[in-house]
Amino acid sequence: MNTFTHMLRDRDTPFHAQHLIDGRWQGEADVAFHSYAPAQNSALPWYFPEAGPAELAALTDSAAAAFSQYRHSSRAQRAAFLRQIALEIEALGAVLIDTVMAETALPQARVEGERGRTCAQLRLFAALLNEPADTVYQSAQPQRLPLPGPELRLDVVPLGPVLVFAASNFPLAFSVAGGDTASALAAGCPVIVKAHNAHPATSALVAQAIDRARRDCDLPAGVFQLVFAQQHAFAEQLLQHPVVKAVAFTGSQQLGLHFQRLIQQRVVPVPFYGELGSQNPLFLLPDQLAQHGDSFAAALAQSVLLGNGQFCTRPGLVFVPEQAETPALLQTLAASFNATSSVTLLTPKIAESYRHGCALLKGLEGVMTVAMGSSEVGEAGCQVLPRLFVTDVALWSDLPQLQQEIFGPATVLIRYRSQAELLTILPSLHGQLTATVYGTEQDLRTHAALVQQLPDLAGRLICNQMPTGVEVCAAMHHGGPFPASTDLRFTAVGTAAYQRFVRPLCWQNFGA
Amino acid sequence: MNTFTHMLRDRDTPFHAQHLIDGRWQGEADVAFHSYAPAQNSALPWYFPEAGPAELAALTDSAAAAFSQYRHSSRAQRAAFLRQIALEIEALGAVLIDTVMAETALPQARVEGERGRTCAQLRLFAALLNEPADTVYQSAQPQRLPLPGPELRLDVVPLGPVLVFAASNFPLAFSVAGGDTASALAAGCPVIVKAHNAHPATSALVAQAIDRARRDCDLPAGVFQLVFAQQHAFAEQLLQHPVVKAVAFTGSQQLGLHFQRLIQQRVVPVPFYGELGSQNPLFLLPDQLAQHGDSFAAALAQSVLLGNGQFCTRPGLVFVPEQAETPALLQTLAASFNATSSVTLLTPKIAESYRHGCALLKGLEGVMTVAMGSSEVGEAGCQVLPRLFVTDVALWSDLPQLQQEIFGPATVLIRYRSQAELLTILPSLHGQLTATVYGTEQDLRTHAALVQQLPDLAGRLICNQMPTGVEVCAAMHHGGPFPASTDLRFTAVGTAAYQRFVRPLCWQNFGA
Repeated sequence: MNTFTHMLRDRDTPFHAQHLIDGRWQGEADVAFHSYAPAQNSALPWYFPEAGPAELAALTDSAAAAFSQYRHSSRAQRAAFLRQIALEIEALGAVLIDTVMAETALPQARVEGERGRTCAQLRLFAALLNEPADTVYQSAQPQRLPLPGPELRLDVVPLGPVLVFAASNFPLAFSVAGGDTASALAAGCPVIVKAHNAHPATSALVAQAIDRARRDCDLPAGVFQLVFAQQHAFAEQLLQHPVVKAVAFTGSQQLGLHFQRLIQQRVVPVPFYGELGSQNPLFLLPDQLAQHGDSFAAALAQSVLLGNGQFCTRPGLVFVPEQAETPALLQTLAASFNATSSVTLLTPKIAESYRHGCALLKGLEGVMTVAMGSSEVGEAGCQVLPRLFVTDVALWSDLPQLQQEIFGPATVLIRYRSQAELLTILPSLHGQLTATVYGTEQDLRTHAALVQQLPDLAGRLICNQMPTGVEVCAAMHHGGPFPASTDLRFTAVGTAAYQRFVRPLCWQNFGA
Repeated sequence: MNTFTHMLRDRDTPFHAQHLIDGRWQGEADVAFHSYAPAQNSALPWYFPEAGPAELAALTDSAAAAFSQYRHSSRAQRAAFLRQIALEIEALGAVLIDTVMAETALPQARVEGERGRTCAQLRLFAALLNEPADTVYQSAQPQRLPLPGPELRLDVVPLGPVLVFAASNFPLAFSVAGGDTASALAAGCPVIVKAHNAHPATSALVAQAIDRARRDCDLPAGVFQLVFAQQHAFAEQLLQHPVVKAVAFTGSQQLGLHFQRLIQQRVVPVPFYGELGSQNPLFLLPDQLAQHGDSFAAALAQSVLLGNGQFCTRPGLVFVPEQAETPALLQTLAASFNATSSVTLLTPKIAESYRHGCALLKGLEGVMTVAMGSSEVGEAGCQVLPRLFVTDVALWSDLPQLQQEIFGPATVLIRYRSQAELLTILPSLHGQLTATVYGTEQDLRTHAALVQQLPDLAGRLICNQMPTGVEVCAAMHHGGPFPASTDLRFTAVGTAAYQRFVRPLCWQNFGA
């Protein structure tokens, strides 16, 4: 148990371990729902409440009331609010970093980097709001023949209250004040965040920062709310509630598809933006391997192990050519993986699922485990060992299990003998967030057919860089064909993310 | 039976009464599937084939093959194709106008106007394609700290083959070469049109024009295909086919929702753009009635009766204030409606549904039929009489039937006593394509609360103009909250309509 956890045991919690509903912290802590330290595989002494019907009614009433005001807020007001949230998050200081580390076992540099990205995202949307709105205006044409032309103004307006399901693997950047919340608030939508159970204390701290900013900016109480619920039943009711006008979700394919089915059953369906996982196939081409095999191996190992292998853009399927240099590549990679120790995943469930997925792969005929990290303590609780698997593309159609995402520090090398072999299996690959090609100029010329097929596969195509690392800017697209996302027309990262929460509205003859 | 029909009986049909699949006219005519003349309530001597499994396979194979080429066509090539289609439609000349009139009983001026609009739409998208593409570019930032910035280019790419269900009420502008087809072709998507059964000969003629343009532009056969099917089973299989990547539908709420459920059952769901009907509520305010009652009455009667009452933007619920001038308004409107003769609707089914809806309203306690057109022949076949109903907003919650759209030349006046009464019922109104307010400056000030609520109701808000008449331009939005449309984020009319058929794709480190 680290010093920080001891310290917190000895004093009051630095946050309200409660729901934030209608501007008030409320709810009785439930002994069954507590924060958890994955590094120590032990409960943290922070208890949180479980939401029920009363919270559901209060949240939705408050969000509806807030929308009637917040929809009319100016772009400058929203920009000021987003900037103030960033300042308040920064003002939380070390206690935020320590809390995230305690709840996620992510290293300090990563957590600090993620805080920086979270605040940068908030400021990016603030900057966007300081630009003029996307309005298309057409003057009246009273003299036009055969009919006069009306005056038209095309605007975008917010959809209404947005429900955000926070992600486990980005406790800050895809969580309470993450990209979904920032873009929905920028769009003029009140937000209800369903906190992720894996980092409730972090969630409460960030919610406190947002609430301070909200009060400072004199915005209605229901503009931002946070709710805790371990039971899916609560989330299921909330996402079917008529006040909720859009839902953003980052999580497992199984839960995401379950939520999508429920949303489709609503009398009035609403947009559902689910990010449900991706294996991020990577295609290493022959000349690249011959000329730059070592630097590729180093970059790949680093990318797979980054953030303990818990990035949604981690390359999980790596197609490598079968040629003279292939054994050396495998050896170098195996050495990297063998040299690792155990890493801590975010929750016992994620770790269990990782071990289960690895065991399943290991048991398949034609799949070899060529490397594995080592550790005295072995694999238990949240601790797992990185793994490197190898198989051959000729077995692809016999091994549908290869397309089951293993979330964690593992990857599968798939040897291929020709571009033709790759082109054959390409149409069977599921939709992906990213697809990457590593090749020399010569490779790219000889493999033009492959590159030409990649657009069908993913939302972002990458050349000679690893897919981990998602730039937050206007030129980014983070999404992709199903199941990478449930709506391939929209991005979860970058300025265009706000378009998920607006709709066009045309004003005819109302004056400029 | 008119001269034109006689004439056609005596010579060969001026079109191929066949499917257009993979660039070839094919299919054996089925005696059960023929064209129909609503004005004469009689069959036309034009027989069409019914598609089955062989057509399904051929259509989808050809569309997939065409997409692999058409997706790489330049913007200039697509623009030339769209312009050529417009020219070929115009080159059809009088036979097109005559055929539409025979199949729809729409008046000549309307049909000619609609042809003009259809060609203007094609040229609008061509002009859009001659503008630079919407690309966002960010240069690499190799020196950036803590990490270098990658080069990024955000592009839009076509979704893939689009299935278009043509509408009954716009045989040209929302049909074979209508807005859905034009915008999908502009986006780079091959199109399969399921012809509307109400105007198959018109559909074949227009398909012939498109096919000529396609050959002229040397584009692959499957870029545009037309298929006939009276049986829903064929359409149901086609919209679940994996090659189809988006579906656009204009039609009844019942059929649209059925199709939507089938699409949601696909393993990989695809965008569904359904336009399912709208009543287009109109709010007449007190001072406007006092000062401009007569001109309002004239404009309303004209708007309701336009195109035989078969516009999706026809005002079907008209809220009028209860005041001294109200009886005179009712009298003027009643006189207009009473002076009408029977009108011909598009199909026997639409006419039957109109008569059924009117009978249902007439039977409701508290709803009065205050005016009805008159005709010696009465109502039968496709012929119906315009009707004006009156009721009171106080009865609103007892009369949910008021929100069942009656497609045809009828409208319901709903008297109200105060703005408060309107604000009470507003949240219960279904989603609409348009909502209209008629008021003087004073009215708009005193009814600011009402106007402020309108955005939730519709996709287009109109002040002191009738909602019929949809401008085709960049500032238009034709869509709205469910059930007016199934996706309120997208428009079916105007340049933004192509956005329904593209998705973002980010290229990282591929060079400018």
